[in-house]
Amino acid sequence: MISSEIDRLINEISKLPGLGRRSAERITLYLLNNKNHSLVPLLKILEESKQKIINCETCGNIDTVSPCNLCTNPKRDLHTICVVEDISDLWTFERIGNYNGVYHILGGALSAINGIGTDDLAITKLIDRINKQKAKEVILALSTTIEGQTTTHVISDKLESITGIIISRLAQGVPIGGEMHYLDENTLNAAFQSRKKIN
Amino acid sequence: MISSEIDRLINEISKLPGLGRRSAERITLYLLNNKNHSLVPLLKILEESKQKIINCETCGNIDTVSPCNLCTNPKRDLHTICVVEDISDLWTFERIGNYNGVYHILGGALSAINGIGTDDLAITKLIDRINKQKAKEVILALSTTIEGQTTTHVISDKLESITGIIISRLAQGVPIGGEMHYLDENTLNAAFQSRKKIN
Repeated sequence: MISSEIDRLINEISKLPGLGRRSAERITLYLLNNKNHSLVPLLKILEESKQKIINCETCGNIDTVSPCNLCTNPKRDLHTICVVEDISDLWTFERIGNYNGVYHILGGALSAINGIGTDDLAITKLIDRINKQKAKEVILALSTTIEGQTTTHVISDKLESITGIIISRLAQGVPIGGEMHYLDENTLNAAFQSRKKIN
Repeated sequence: MISSEIDRLINEISKLPGLGRRSAERITLYLLNNKNHSLVPLLKILEESKQKIINCETCGNIDTVSPCNLCTNPKRDLHTICVVEDISDLWTFERIGNYNGVYHILGGALSAINGIGTDDLAITKLIDRINKQKAKEVILALSTTIEGQTTTHVISDKLESITGIIISRLAQGVPIGGEMHYLDENTLNAAFQSRKKIN
């Protein structure tokens, strides 16, 4: 007996990632119970975002300008390009705040199951950019899943022909704060193989 | 280095109940990465809801019409009024689908801490409605928290002077599927006191 209008709103909200029917109902009631303080400001910023936010044609990031503020920031080192799967990874690295180079959003990782091939990722664009920006180092900061590792191999193969650049990937091993007995076999194997002398 | 426009959108989304900063970021990226399939339909239904959905002046429910479709449904028994704290409780009972009367949204429960007194709840409106609809039974289906139980007592006191109506509350006891050793003392005490003969 929920009116079809409200039901459509709940359905649309429950499509958002991480939300189920119950949380969508809760959000719907929150929005409708106090329209002026919740629904109206949300509508306003969503409408503005729809109009203003665009993809950066250089790196694939989102911003109100293209090239984005990261690509045009004179303090960032254009010779170091960190390749990430998606924008949320860029946000993660920026939250840490230690990295001073620029980014390149790949748009995912190769996946036979999901039908994502090399043409679906911004690889050709990456190669063009490396040449154009005279990059010295490309950091492949992709997931350490099978898909991510496959993508790392494929890209590093393609970049090998470009002379004079360093291709790197993030270190693999025991996460800080990790307890040995909770770690999986693959992580421990990688950590053993890459062990470091401390004396 | 997230643009202030995007940051404002994330902030607005993270105000929604049950969402934190990380889930708001995830939803933001989902909305912005594929505007036409996610942001545009959401905007449309939110805008429509803002304009169309109103509160029922009889029971406090939300609908596109007032009195709402529940209050005007000829199949519902107007002589039985189920008093609930908020609309999500009404939805819960309607989901079960066994109740055939109408509802009355109280708008919360009495709470000294949150500064909610009898004037903040739709109690006077309930009494008017009982008289007007010639109600035969009022079911107080409020939470069994301290606030809800206080509210139940206060309302039943106020309704006592109205002659010829039954005032009831939901049964209290062991929830179905409940295991004794997981239940709290108060529930078990209530279940003991209201025990039923089975022979």
